[in-house]
Amino acid sequence: MWSNQAYLIAPVQYKQDFAKNRTPAPGAPASVIDSMKNKYDIPQAEIVAVGNELLNGLVSDTNSTFICGQLRMHGLQVGRISVVGDDADAIRSALDQALSRVDLVIVTGGLGATHDDITKDVLADYFGTPLVRDPKVEEMIRVFFEKRQRPVPDAALRQAEVPKDGRPLYNDQGTAPGLMFERGEQRVYVLPGVPREAEHLTRQYILPDVAPAGNLCLQQRMLWTTGLVESALWEMFGPVDELENLVQVASLPSHLGVRIHLTAYGENVEETSAKIEQAETLLEKVLSSYIYARDEQTMESVLGQLLVDRGETVAVAESCTGGLIGHRLTNIPGSSRYFLQGWLTYSNEAKVKSLGVDAALVERHGAVSEEVARAMAEGARQCAGTDWAVSVTGIAGPDGGTATKPVGLTYIAVAGKTLTSCQKFVFPQDRLRNKERAAQAALNLLRLHLIGLK
Amino acid sequence: MWSNQAYLIAPVQYKQDFAKNRTPAPGAPASVIDSMKNKYDIPQAEIVAVGNELLNGLVSDTNSTFICGQLRMHGLQVGRISVVGDDADAIRSALDQALSRVDLVIVTGGLGATHDDITKDVLADYFGTPLVRDPKVEEMIRVFFEKRQRPVPDAALRQAEVPKDGRPLYNDQGTAPGLMFERGEQRVYVLPGVPREAEHLTRQYILPDVAPAGNLCLQQRMLWTTGLVESALWEMFGPVDELENLVQVASLPSHLGVRIHLTAYGENVEETSAKIEQAETLLEKVLSSYIYARDEQTMESVLGQLLVDRGETVAVAESCTGGLIGHRLTNIPGSSRYFLQGWLTYSNEAKVKSLGVDAALVERHGAVSEEVARAMAEGARQCAGTDWAVSVTGIAGPDGGTATKPVGLTYIAVAGKTLTSCQKFVFPQDRLRNKERAAQAALNLLRLHLIGLK
Repeated sequence: MWSNQAYLIAPVQYKQDFAKNRTPAPGAPASVIDSMKNKYDIPQAEIVAVGNELLNGLVSDTNSTFICGQLRMHGLQVGRISVVGDDADAIRSALDQALSRVDLVIVTGGLGATHDDITKDVLADYFGTPLVRDPKVEEMIRVFFEKRQRPVPDAALRQAEVPKDGRPLYNDQGTAPGLMFERGEQRVYVLPGVPREAEHLTRQYILPDVAPAGNLCLQQRMLWTTGLVESALWEMFGPVDELENLVQVASLPSHLGVRIHLTAYGENVEETSAKIEQAETLLEKVLSSYIYARDEQTMESVLGQLLVDRGETVAVAESCTGGLIGHRLTNIPGSSRYFLQGWLTYSNEAKVKSLGVDAALVERHGAVSEEVARAMAEGARQCAGTDWAVSVTGIAGPDGGTATKPVGLTYIAVAGKTLTSCQKFVFPQDRLRNKERAAQAALNLLRLHLIGLK
Repeated sequence: MWSNQAYLIAPVQYKQDFAKNRTPAPGAPASVIDSMKNKYDIPQAEIVAVGNELLNGLVSDTNSTFICGQLRMHGLQVGRISVVGDDADAIRSALDQALSRVDLVIVTGGLGATHDDITKDVLADYFGTPLVRDPKVEEMIRVFFEKRQRPVPDAALRQAEVPKDGRPLYNDQGTAPGLMFERGEQRVYVLPGVPREAEHLTRQYILPDVAPAGNLCLQQRMLWTTGLVESALWEMFGPVDELENLVQVASLPSHLGVRIHLTAYGENVEETSAKIEQAETLLEKVLSSYIYARDEQTMESVLGQLLVDRGETVAVAESCTGGLIGHRLTNIPGSSRYFLQGWLTYSNEAKVKSLGVDAALVERHGAVSEEVARAMAEGARQCAGTDWAVSVTGIAGPDGGTATKPVGLTYIAVAGKTLTSCQKFVFPQDRLRNKERAAQAALNLLRLHLIGLK
């Protein structure tokens, strides 16, 4: 749901410099990683992603995104990602170029059991090492198929062959082991393309190997905001100098809000924690009511925690969002403790019959009106017997708009014990995004009520 | 929702060969593209994606996925994607390497108005051309801000500077124009990183320039299946030789089903159409009831068309899916013609009170049972007065399972005029995916009823 438009306010404290620092400093310790880790001189790794499907427009290379993020948390900056097809020449040339720039390369994809998967052979050939059968991998493959009560195909057993001078990365999530090759101070890790397996082996084998041990510490924080467009947010915040002296700031806008990503660098975790905390305080001071979540939190997880803490319950009455608000609320495990019931009242009759909205109100003001939004929320709260109810009624588009009620016109109401409030929005013309915008705004209005800001 | 695991059954009819064919054949026509277009010798392009955010784990490079897919539809194969940061040396070296392999390079990102956006300067420098202000771009930028009733910032006006020896790609979706550089037979297009703008300029400027005109024709078809895991699907289909003699086949599994992607190559559109049609017939013969959509269709668009054609209506009664089925049905413009109403009956009380499910039934069989699923569907159909109703009740997890009713146990029912049918599923343990699986299975069960296969 988040667009991938990123707007870096400014790079601070370090300058990415991919072409230089290719070799560790003279007299550096044995570890490739540590040797390159000087203050604010971020070590470099590269990724070579292999797979025809990545070049055909069928799938995006999300494995690299995951690996980049994980390495960065460990103080390692990926300098380049090269995406190539299942082609020996292409794999070889991308690997060769990557190793001419950096000492840590992660290759993903092409380790499967079909004849298109050539990555293992290409790399064994590149490092001049024969393939030998690894008994432990063979045993894991046999167990994998036994568990599924299926015979072991020959093609699968071929996956037990690993490079003699490499190290197998045992994979208990699938049949293809990962691989690790070393040449002098250079290391190449090879991971299967299946995301779950690639993520598993990254955590199990690569991250422990590159654990930060040098003099550079890095800490990140994501702040999730909604309710302000990007330019309005930074205009409200004012000059960013003080903020940027503490942390590197990336501002990531989408139709659901702006994510603010902070990165602090320092000598140790005390220093980075202090910087993150100070930066967050600066942002909180101005934007507090717009910041709804941090790091792994979501709007619905924050709402769930608020409702559980208060021992309160909620119901929804959705028209144009069609169920999206209920879907989001129930994505949280244990949401049955506070989410009791919802109504998808798409037709006017449903609003009247199921929620007790006065038919005359619909007749007089139309289904998309403040009056009907309020009546829907109050009706849902009463019918469900909950503490809170949220309602949405709007014109999602692309059709159904009029001169006075354009496409995108949306009313959102929250009914509580003591009051009902309503907000009016006019969203741009894009049906799916308008549904998402409306659901986000509705959940946020409930949040503001729960924390007492409405 | 689709995983990015791709499993190429076999490449047929052409062999990707990135390292060779770097230069057009001698005596080739002026057009770079056409000159490289020999039978099954797919022309090559490359992408250089620029942006620190692409290397930080914050966002995936979906622009490249879009461009790859669009170029492929026009007979052009992208041979490599190089993702680099906002760094002059890195951009220059990636571009240089790409132009040593292919004659068409598309650069994305780094055209914004902030000081991190250096792509335009780097490329102007690379091609040795100064920047000059383009009056049309300047006018478009002024209009852009006037419409928003905001003064034009100086930084935005700097975007009106375009390379003297390049061509601006006028961008009416944002303030940064795209650019096109030519050097001999080589072309470099530069697009903004904002996905909407990159897509718009790709369609408006790049695709017309590379329109197929040679002796190679390519045609694609996506068939969407659900209800069979990948291995079962291909086992049921049997030997693939005949299929692969016609088309290249890629099988893309996810938890919602398997997508089958077909690519036909030929001399002309008659040949490729015939191959696609024959291949589809082979697949339809065995898998017809599992194939629910083709190409741009979705499950919900297919259902919408079926309901409109029959003049029938539907209601939903959702428990564990929490609104996802209603959300999906209402993603289709005009769905108010057939989707009248839904109930999110998360609590037992809601099932009894709103849908008229017999409390004794819930007491005796439990809320997650075939009996309750049937009663929910029949109750929803009756309350809403629709032709059809779909219900889901299940244990989404991760908690709430018992020995006899494990996490993932889900009952799905469809009630129609003449009968109610129910299916039982036990999905694996992953809350969000189980909700998605259940919604998909519920919509598919409705589809099977509508086409008379249930």
